Parts: sequence; structure tokens; C-alpha cells
Amino acid sequence: MEVYFDNSSTTRCSDTVKDLVVRAMCEDYGNPSSMHRKGMEGEQYIREAKKRISKTLKAKESEILFTSGGTESNNLAILGAAMANKRSGMHLITTKIEHPAVLSPMKFLEEQGFSVTYLDVDEHGRISLEQLASSVTLDTILVSVMYVNNEIGAVEPVAEAAGVIKRKNPSALFHVDAIQAYGKYVIHPGKMGIDLLSVSGHKIHGPKGVGFLYVREKTKIKPILYGGGQQKGMRSGTENVPGIAGLGQAAVEAYEAFEDKREHLYQLKEAFVQGLEGEEWAHFNGGIGRDGAPHIVSLTVDGVRSEVLLHALEDRGIYVSAGSACASNKPSPSATLQAIRLEKERLESTVRVSFCAGNTLEEVGYCIAALKELAPALRRFTRH
Amino acid sequence: MEVYFDNSSTTRCSDTVKDLVVRAMCEDYGNPSSMHRKGMEGEQYIREAKKRISKTLKAKESEILFTSGGTESNNLAILGAAMANKRSGMHLITTKIEHPAVLSPMKFLEEQGFSVTYLDVDEHGRISLEQLASSVTLDTILVSVMYVNNEIGAVEPVAEAAGVIKRKNPSALFHVDAIQAYGKYVIHPGKMGIDLLSVSGHKIHGPKGVGFLYVREKTKIKPILYGGGQQKGMRSGTENVPGIAGLGQAAVEAYEAFEDKREHLYQLKEAFVQGLEGEEWAHFNGGIGRDGAPHIVSLTVDGVRSEVLLHALEDRGIYVSAGSACASNKPSPSATLQAIRLEKERLESTVRVSFCAGNTLEEVGYCIAALKELAPALRRFTRH
Repeated sequence: MEVYFDNSSTTRCSDTVKDLVVRAMCEDYGNPSSMHRKGMEGEQYIREAKKRISKTLKAKESEILFTSGGTESNNLAILGAAMANKRSGMHLITTKIEHPAVLSPMKFLEEQGFSVTYLDVDEHGRISLEQLASSVTLDTILVSVMYVNNEIGAVEPVAEAAGVIKRKNPSALFHVDAIQAYGKYVIHPGKMGIDLLSVSGHKIHGPKGVGFLYVREKTKIKPILYGGGQQKGMRSGTENVPGIAGLGQAAVEAYEAFEDKREHLYQLKEAFVQGLEGEEWAHFNGGIGRDGAPHIVSLTVDGVRSEVLLHALEDRGIYVSAGSACASNKPSPSATLQAIRLEKERLESTVRVSFCAGNTLEEVGYCIAALKELAPALRRFTRH
Repeated sequence: MEVYFDNSSTTRCSDTVKDLVVRAMCEDYGNPSSMHRKGMEGEQYIREAKKRISKTLKAKESEILFTSGGTESNNLAILGAAMANKRSGMHLITTKIEHPAVLSPMKFLEEQGFSVTYLDVDEHGRISLEQLASSVTLDTILVSVMYVNNEIGAVEPVAEAAGVIKRKNPSALFHVDAIQAYGKYVIHPGKMGIDLLSVSGHKIHGPKGVGFLYVREKTKIKPILYGGGQQKGMRSGTENVPGIAGLGQAAVEAYEAFEDKREHLYQLKEAFVQGLEGEEWAHFNGGIGRDGAPHIVSLTVDGVRSEVLLHALEDRGIYVSAGSACASNKPSPSATLQAIRLEKERLESTVRVSFCAGNTLEEVGYCIAALKELAPALRRFTRH
């Protein structure tokens, strides 16, 4: 049995997405900037994708900007907003549990003379609106708070945060990294007070190498790539038509039978948690209720290093993650797990299990059985 | 008959490339940063692509950096080199006929206080090595010269330029935009003295949304996107595995039967030029001999606006470009055509015809016949 429980790292591309990508690669392959029919065909794919995506957000088509993925979306939002608004202030706010694609641009801006406040989170991984309120000043130009944390599935109060920010400083921009949230939550950035919103294709059964940034009308950001002036000069470079078309299709599919799929994901999560109830070595981080994201479970197996557990599960055909994939390049203790004050010995014994709607209760049962068999044995082994 | 003569705008993705892309999207879809087998599979695609590409360049695998395309490659080379070396100097050199993806980052750097020298070109579109030599100073940190011009197919003396630059200032870096040259010329950057070389996937029957930057060992550049630290921190973001795999395959195919394909392209070009010989209204720009690129022809049809000719040809199923696709967003007189001092009335009457190895002499004949029929009629029409 092969069980892929690493859907927050990346997902399998859906077959309908793949078919559309192939069509745009091999049949309707024109350059959208070309003035002839084949160029117009390419342009048409982009328009259709914009239409489909903007509909899921109740946004305008002109508010969607295509990028090469989540990292570029976050960089464009943060660097682009900082560069465009630095005359209004040099202060930014974010949280201690953001993805590196938010934290690293923030670090870069600190080197450029900006100052950044990093908000704490509680043991469930949630920010405090009071701390946010007291951090926003008239010098604050951007606040960036993720919607769903990628390691523990904590859901931040983004709509409330938007209210807090705008009350303290109406001209401060609000960016939300929704890479783990889009398709799992209904997000209407206009209504919620979000100015910039990042989404990645490959987390929602779309293609890798493509994403979008929602940019609310009249929001001032500067481009970070310069060239032929595509996308109204905000993102130069020949548009990745196949990727964009695939992203549009994936967006539609993400919100099809949305409630059913979310209910199914919660059932998987609850079955997983219940399956390990009573095991003294099993601990869940960041909350396991429906106030957390439906698809992410953070599990600590006391006394077993996460890589050891990961490979033992892999031997059974079960794929999970040690921390987040994006941070696996440089193995260092997870900033998120430290921020929720996980005990030191548990930092290195934590895996992330992440579902997609195609996963089954049978797969969860198979994984639970494997964990119950492996964990006690591995713990004995580790204690030597 | 459908004749696609706009291959310098973009190309059809080859079927073998498409098959590999599909496999990496739907079967081996793991995140290369994941520690389990499915992650390793993804990583393996990247390694294989690096191996294949570096072989075509006689380069090391570690010298290949994947990007989201030609525009990002050029931006990373230019902005990355400028930011990393600004303590050594603030002067850059480029040419007046570069692609916007080079000229626009240069303009941005000028706003940041750098100074840029723009080299002239002769009537064939070629720079003068003397002017280059007299422009390089000890304050020069980067020279950027394209290999093949995208509008007229002029081939720049890049190897000689490298020698000139290094003699005047051994620490100045040399970047070559090879987006229209890769696959048409054998390029060994190490031997030729090139430090940075940009290539795009979709110009060589590979996928859109992917490209690479060759970065010679020990060349100092800074990243322009920040995040999870992928690709040794030089380009964060989950790697576009399907795109990268497709690019590797396209690179191999570009250099398969290389001499035969180049000979075929020159034959197409020569048949095209000969077919219009003696027509008083037909003029070719930038040289038509084998010192120019094999796949690009710049044709002026006196007295006919390029859009009019483009759409008239389109009615016959023939696709060409008015100027370059990348500049078609903002219709302004071509900088390249101005730089070669094309007469003012011809600036707006020029189309680009660009071949791929799959094009045939029959298609050229069909296009010539269409031109001979259309041009006199359109010229009469225009004169009213």
C-alpha cells in the first residue's frame, strides 16, 4: 500500500489539470504577447484562469497577478510593498511562525534598514490581537500574517487582524500568505480587509512553478523582476500559459464540493487523532480541533527522532514530513515548534502528516497500525 | 496550410518533453526537499536535468541554476551581480539592442545610482570591440552582451568581447543573454570567458515558465528571491520539477543532429531571402549571410505597416511577428531597428520571420507566394 500523507509539501497534479497543461504546451502554444491568432489563444487561457481564480476570491480579474509560485508571490508582496511605500514608513510586522518565504524577505529588509516586529504565538500557534494592536504604529507600512501555518495547521484570525491593523493605521497594507489555506477556506480578501494574498499552484493539485498574488485594486507595490512589461509591468517575462491554465483549473477544482471535501478532511484528521488516543508516546501539537486546519496534523512521537520515524514509515509505503519540506534543506529546529514552546526533546521528534481529499479512512487506519507497531520498537531502539 | 514562423517568440513543446513533464506532474510528483523516496525521485529529475544541460555547455552541474525563465535569468544575473559586487564598482556596460529583460534591470540599476554605458551597433547590429575596450574601466563590474539579437538575428562577437573585457579589467563579470542562441550555437562558457549565461526553455521546444542561469564557479552574485534556501540559497522556492525535467530534455534535443538542423535552418533562411530577391519593396535588415543567426529573418516591406502585413499573412495561416513578441505589449519603435539606423519609414514596416527545425522549404515557398501576392496589393491600399 502506498499512502501519500505529505500533501502540504506538494500534491499530485490532477488529471484534468494535466490535460489542460498539455493542451497549452503542444497545441495552443502561442506567446500571449504575439499579435496573431496563436498569441490571442495563449492570452485567452490567461484571461480564463484569471476569471476562474477571481471568482473563488470574489475579486476582480485585474487583481490577480501570476507568479512562478508561492515564494515569488510572498517576495513580490513583501519586497514590492516595502519598496513602494518606504517613504511612508520603515516598519513591518509579521509572526514568528511564518514560512521562510516570508521570514527571509523580512530579514533582507532588515539588512536594508527596515525594522520588523515578530509577533509571538500561543501554544496553539495563534497570534494575539492585543500584541498586534500594540505593535502597529503610524510608521508601519506592511503586516504579514499567514492564514494557515504549514507545520501545525494553526489558523490565524486574519479577518480580525485586518480590522485591528486598519483601525490603528488605515494606510498600512495587510499581506496574507494563504498557501496552505487556499482551497481549504473560503477567502474573500476584499471583504476581509486583505490587500495582498499569496497562493501556490502545487499545493492544490495544480502545477509546480506557478502561483498568484492577489493585489487589491489601488494597492501600491513595485515589481521585483524587470523586462518586457507583461502583466501591466508588474511581472515581466513570457507568461507560463500552461502553468497558469493549470492553476485556474486547480482553483476551480479546489472549491468544487468544497464543504464535502473539508468535512472528509476533518474526518481523516479526527480518525488519525482518535487512533492514537491513549498512546503515552503520542502528542499532537497546535490543537486538534476544528479550529485548526482540516488537512494538517503535527505529531510528536516521544523518544523517536523524526527522520527515523519518517524512514520507518516510508518502508511501509507511508510518506510524511519531518517538519516542513521547505525547511528540510537546512535541518535546524523548527521555528514554529519553538514558538509554541514545544519541549526541547520533542522538537526533533515531530512529524507532519498532511492529507488531501483523495486520501481515505482506510489509509489512515493503515498508518495508525504502522505507527502503533513501529513507535514502541523504535523507542526501545532509541533508548539504547 | 498553417505555417508557424514565429519560433523566436515561442515554440511548440516537443512530445518527448511533454511526456516527461506529465510524468513529473502526475507520477513522480514529490517535493525535492522532502526526505522520503518521493522527494528523492523529484530531486533525481533535477540532477538529471543539470547533468544533461551542463554537458551541452561543457560546464559543471553545480554551475546550473534553475529559474522561472529567461527574464528571471537575466534579472538574477544583472541585479544579482550588481548587488554582490557594488563595493568593487558602480559601472555596467551593455548594448543598445538588448532584450527588455536586460535593458529594464539596467534602467532600474541606474535609478539606484549605478551608471550604465550602452554600446552602439553597426548597420548589421554588431557591437564594436574597440568601443567596448574603451568603455571598460576599473569601476566596471559587469558587461552584458547578447549572443543573438532577437529581432534581427545579429550574432555578437561574445568570445572576443570576453577577451577584451578581461584584459582591461580581470574582475569585471561577463553576462551573455543566450536565449536566442542556445541550441543554435555550440556555447562553452568556461572556454569562452563567459561568467553568466541566460537560457529560456520555451524558445527551444521546452516548457514555458522555466529557464536556467549558468553561473561560473566562484562568480559572486546575490539571490533576488528569498525563502526556503533551495538551490544552495541562490533561488528559493519549491523547484518546478516538471519544467526543469522538460528543460533538460529540450536541451538534449536541441543539440541532437545539431549540424544538420542548423544547415536546414540556413537553407530555409536562404530560400526565403532568395524568394524575395528582386522585389523592390522587400528589404532585409541586419545581414542575411551565415554570419547571422540561422533562424531569424528581419523583413521590411516598404509602404506596408507591420501589423497590416502580419494580419494579412495570418489570414493565410502564416504566423510571423511584428518586432519581437516581448515588446508587443507597448507598441513603440523598436530600439534594435533604431540602433541599426533603419530609415524612419521602415521602422513601422518590419516583420520578423523565425524558423524552427521542423519548418520546411514548402512552408517557405507558401509564405513567399503569399508575400508576393499580398505586398503589392497592400502597398496600393496603404498609398490611398
